[in-house]
Amino acid sequence: MSHPIRVSEIFGPTIQGEGALIGQPTVFVRTGGCDYRCAWCDSLHAVDADYRHTWAPMQAEAVLAEVARLSGGRPILVTLSGGNPAIQPLGPLIEAGRTQGYRFAMETQGSVARDWFADLDMLVLSPKPPSSGMGVDWVAFGACLSAAGEVRAVLKIVVFDEADYQWAREVAGRYPSLPLYLQPGNHTPPPPGDDAAAVDHAGIEARMRWLVGRVVADGWYGATVLPQLHVTLWGNTRGV
Amino acid sequence: MSHPIRVSEIFGPTIQGEGALIGQPTVFVRTGGCDYRCAWCDSLHAVDADYRHTWAPMQAEAVLAEVARLSGGRPILVTLSGGNPAIQPLGPLIEAGRTQGYRFAMETQGSVARDWFADLDMLVLSPKPPSSGMGVDWVAFGACLSAAGEVRAVLKIVVFDEADYQWAREVAGRYPSLPLYLQPGNHTPPPPGDDAAAVDHAGIEARMRWLVGRVVADGWYGATVLPQLHVTLWGNTRGV
Repeated sequence: MSHPIRVSEIFGPTIQGEGALIGQPTVFVRTGGCDYRCAWCDSLHAVDADYRHTWAPMQAEAVLAEVARLSGGRPILVTLSGGNPAIQPLGPLIEAGRTQGYRFAMETQGSVARDWFADLDMLVLSPKPPSSGMGVDWVAFGACLSAAGEVRAVLKIVVFDEADYQWAREVAGRYPSLPLYLQPGNHTPPPPGDDAAAVDHAGIEARMRWLVGRVVADGWYGATVLPQLHVTLWGNTRGV
Repeated sequence: MSHPIRVSEIFGPTIQGEGALIGQPTVFVRTGGCDYRCAWCDSLHAVDADYRHTWAPMQAEAVLAEVARLSGGRPILVTLSGGNPAIQPLGPLIEAGRTQGYRFAMETQGSVARDWFADLDMLVLSPKPPSSGMGVDWVAFGACLSAAGEVRAVLKIVVFDEADYQWAREVAGRYPSLPLYLQPGNHTPPPPGDDAAAVDHAGIEARMRWLVGRVVADGWYGATVLPQLHVTLWGNTRGV
């Protein structure tokens, strides 16, 4: 038996709602626990220790069995998210899944590097901007990129305001070769335990329009600007 | 002087609202005239001969100059759309633009093949489903693919209903190696000349949720499902 994975939820198939793989059918494996605590976290039920009792320790085989049950046994893209999935022992899950045809994308802030990043199909690094209240350890971040090796790595940056936007510009300058996705933040994230809470769709769409205009005004044509489709379609509801 | 291009509108930069390049900053060059007349056409001002007086004949150099003016002289993705841009002499525009660093994606139904398809950066083939009232000439469609050669080609299919969906499944079976994007149709397209007309956002979002559910129910994990972001963000307004 290897170390168990702390799992907050496994759900899908649905579509990936954001970033480089937007629109692709996927099953999400959301792990519990995070070394960050972003001010606007939209997944507190997988971050806040108050919800630790909802996180199940599962062996890789059990996680893969649940993914296969949800996908009808057909290989699908598996999205590893959190919390910070990099603090979980996901190597055996990825290795076993890939032999069965599953593909794996992982979303992490880039604070913890693991050698099994090199076994992913895509590494989505999402460094947190000033509005999060978190700071980025760029040495650790660089180690994540190094660990990914030849695996396709992309940047995804959530933007709430002008300070976040300027910060994203600096990050792009630091990693000019990485594809970069900008995403307007959701200022009405779900309070954990109340995923029926209202979402300010109009406000989020206004931020999206502002972000498009901001990129255009700067002639920053290498950036891709995408919303969170799942929020548009399903609000803060979990499991879709 | 080469033959002029019939131009309906040149606008941007904005983001590409749909398909494989969704979210990427781009300038649109929309040509006037079409060999199709889809029942739910969302660009009748570039299709209906009643609007022919609004289409300007322009030389490739003039089109490129306008694109460069809009982009601030910075190379950007240029999206060639219509109408059917394949019936226009776009080869010289693409050739001149590429020498200056511009990239070109073209959206066409696949009814007319041109040898300059091979000079594009992406060819988006959008065969029209039953709800359009149009039929597909698969020989001509195959010629478009052949003309593209090594250029990245993708399929984009608009889906309004179950018949369209089943048809999309057949097309996917016919071209298993082409990436395929499904897009819920807009049943409230703008009447030409009234781009402030109301859009049934709730209805379009309901169709998007249905389409995601349909793909998931069939385990069709190779399909990507994406909405028209520009309709969500700007309704039927032209020029964005």
